[in-house]
Amino acid sequence: MASKPSIPKGTRDFSPTEVAKRHYIIQIIKNNFEKFGFQPIETPSFENSETLMGKYGEEGDRLIFKILNSGDYLAKANATHLENKDSTKLTASISEKALRYDLTVPFARYVVQHQNEIEFPFKRYQIQPVWRADRPQKGRFREFFQCDADVVGSKSLWQEVELVQLYDTVFSALGLEGVTIKINNRKILSGIADVIGASDKLIDFTVALDKLDKIGEDGVKKEMMEKGISAAAILKVQPLFHFTGTISEKISQLSVLLAESEEGMKGVEELRFICDNVMKLGLSNSTLDLDVTLARGLNYYTGAIFEVAPPKAVAMGSIGGGGRYDDLTGIFGLKNMSGVGISFGLDRIYLVIEELNLFPETVTATSKALFINYGDAEAFYGLQAIQKLRAAGIKVELYPDNAKVAKQFQHADKRGIPFAVIAGEQEIASDTFVLKNLISGEQRTVDFESLKQDLLRS
Amino acid sequence: MASKPSIPKGTRDFSPTEVAKRHYIIQIIKNNFEKFGFQPIETPSFENSETLMGKYGEEGDRLIFKILNSGDYLAKANATHLENKDSTKLTASISEKALRYDLTVPFARYVVQHQNEIEFPFKRYQIQPVWRADRPQKGRFREFFQCDADVVGSKSLWQEVELVQLYDTVFSALGLEGVTIKINNRKILSGIADVIGASDKLIDFTVALDKLDKIGEDGVKKEMMEKGISAAAILKVQPLFHFTGTISEKISQLSVLLAESEEGMKGVEELRFICDNVMKLGLSNSTLDLDVTLARGLNYYTGAIFEVAPPKAVAMGSIGGGGRYDDLTGIFGLKNMSGVGISFGLDRIYLVIEELNLFPETVTATSKALFINYGDAEAFYGLQAIQKLRAAGIKVELYPDNAKVAKQFQHADKRGIPFAVIAGEQEIASDTFVLKNLISGEQRTVDFESLKQDLLRS
Repeated sequence: MASKPSIPKGTRDFSPTEVAKRHYIIQIIKNNFEKFGFQPIETPSFENSETLMGKYGEEGDRLIFKILNSGDYLAKANATHLENKDSTKLTASISEKALRYDLTVPFARYVVQHQNEIEFPFKRYQIQPVWRADRPQKGRFREFFQCDADVVGSKSLWQEVELVQLYDTVFSALGLEGVTIKINNRKILSGIADVIGASDKLIDFTVALDKLDKIGEDGVKKEMMEKGISAAAILKVQPLFHFTGTISEKISQLSVLLAESEEGMKGVEELRFICDNVMKLGLSNSTLDLDVTLARGLNYYTGAIFEVAPPKAVAMGSIGGGGRYDDLTGIFGLKNMSGVGISFGLDRIYLVIEELNLFPETVTATSKALFINYGDAEAFYGLQAIQKLRAAGIKVELYPDNAKVAKQFQHADKRGIPFAVIAGEQEIASDTFVLKNLISGEQRTVDFESLKQDLLRS
Repeated sequence: MASKPSIPKGTRDFSPTEVAKRHYIIQIIKNNFEKFGFQPIETPSFENSETLMGKYGEEGDRLIFKILNSGDYLAKANATHLENKDSTKLTASISEKALRYDLTVPFARYVVQHQNEIEFPFKRYQIQPVWRADRPQKGRFREFFQCDADVVGSKSLWQEVELVQLYDTVFSALGLEGVTIKINNRKILSGIADVIGASDKLIDFTVALDKLDKIGEDGVKKEMMEKGISAAAILKVQPLFHFTGTISEKISQLSVLLAESEEGMKGVEELRFICDNVMKLGLSNSTLDLDVTLARGLNYYTGAIFEVAPPKAVAMGSIGGGGRYDDLTGIFGLKNMSGVGISFGLDRIYLVIEELNLFPETVTATSKALFINYGDAEAFYGLQAIQKLRAAGIKVELYPDNAKVAKQFQHADKRGIPFAVIAGEQEIASDTFVLKNLISGEQRTVDFESLKQDLLRS
């Protein structure tokens, strides 16, 4: 006998309940993307290798899944690399295609390839799976969905304002309260680098500063000095160790701290515009917070940087992120295309909503009623009604076999179907149905119209 | 300068309009799958190679996209095959995973793997992409969606009845009239093989018979004899050359023709049950037709065989197909699991609906209104209204930049946005908006409430 089949590690099967819950989240994200004027595109699951390779750094190149060429791929394999058994170098000669690693590079490729058909500024969203040959661990998969919204072709900061609103709107629609939308700006980070006089130490600096809550001011300073940041430099940014207050207050502090840095002051101005307008327009359920340690994708973003933290009750990493990148399409030869976008982390949002018990019960609803099968004549009578109920938009089904009645009721129970419809000889004769509520056990004899109304209402 | 990027042959980018149209079709299919009691599952894009290989014949094995192992894959490569440069044999040692080729084998794998969690009969649907390294040609792609609904765990023929209804319901909902749902039965084909005394010639026989309209009775008979079917055998099935009339009449003819074949008569009984009940329950817009030349996936199906032809006005191959397979999960060690299912051909359905001009205009609707940007104060005033309009479910957007007004109106025009909202100093002072219909050119000054009502109504 064959051994029980399995799936590759890091991948998942989704059961009906899981699919329903995932689609509930996706549908809300999608609806709000469209309400904000974003339009969907879809790109192929695999791209030409040259489109992807070299875009995510060396580590990224390793994590990209490559597709073996079809046919006699060894015929065209590089003989030297083959002889040397050099896997890394051989790959290019036996694999021309690779699974997409994210949605941003394919989007950039799309914009350049279709630039003459696109009306700019172009607001696009894309909800598709991506693949990474990462080591699987809790919450990290080799196949997962990304949900991205980006605008390309305008530098207007109103877009940053709207993207913060979009986060707030989506998370509110999902019932998530207490989400924190963190904002920073690449130019603030450059300003800090200017002030500490060590742009190569910037990441060490932000990583250490981010530990303030955990290891305290002295701990952070010790780590910074171990990384080679001078005591004098640390002293210059002393205010960052007591960086509290409202966003406006924080921005004021930054404008003092970064006064000498032209780049830094530009960042302050951008932050001020975005935060002022967001605050004046107001958020529903989320809090906007300025976090100068936020530095995700440092080499990538050029302006605003976003990251979203779930409600504090849930211990979980970020559930969204994004930012401004001034040269999205340059890698494909189209210069001066500024882009700004955000992403929603579907898997983590799912876990947060699950943990907070916020999925509506109706999400996983199966059929409203199961018609019990007493034999062919009864099944036919039932299907006549089923046909009309479905036409009225009601989900109903017939148990396919004339099995023991207890077994059929058990099936309804296990499937979570709330009603059974019983129609035997007597009901057929009187053109009626017995509608049984499987939760309360109540049942009553009704004509078709009442059956329909009852099921519509329930 | 980099050359313009491209995508792998046989794959496609989908523009916003195309995505909207595809999702319109998918949504209708999905809604009706659920109305008929089917529940969604999703499986990983790639499976372990052993799950897929050997399941689709030699040709299928060749057409499966294999994923190169990550890391130093040559270290574990089979040395002999490597030395012999035997691509086919080497593959298993450098590739453990492969992209799914269809949704049926992954479904069978899913059922076996999760058999203890599944409540049978299990009605599942699955709408996901599949990949085939086929030679791309018009209407044939290397990445395409399949939309499958299957029931596993019951032999009841009521399911075949409902699947015919499901086809009719979906195509009616799509506005497609004149679809032909062709039905046959594997056992009828076995019966014919019995009668002509040559089961190995069955495919030759049906392929030739299928050409009756094109090459006439004499042509068909000539071809059959060339393929080694005896004149005596052909004489025995003479009625199939004048196989006309209603379905009931055709079934009667078959019951005479196949009287000597036990298997054939079983097929006649099954066909009679399904067709009788379908006809008595009635179809909305489709025609059921019995086609004894229908033999798709002959080695696979064991009972009913379905295929759907588009309206005659459109020259296009089948837009759907399916059937009964008595041993779906045997390949993975779970015996006696009968399944029956149907599939919708998304790409071809799209082309048919496009050709018949049946996509509703609303499918591709973008934002309802574009707020013209006259500067930061006006943009802020506009965003206050936009925020409330979006909360009311209305898709609206702000032009991000304070660009020339003509350019902004042109943007609305190119995007197909039907209204512009204009608010300058004067409107801000009076708390009003100018709503301009971009099709008629009409414009009027309104307060927020009227703006909202007008946009909701339009």
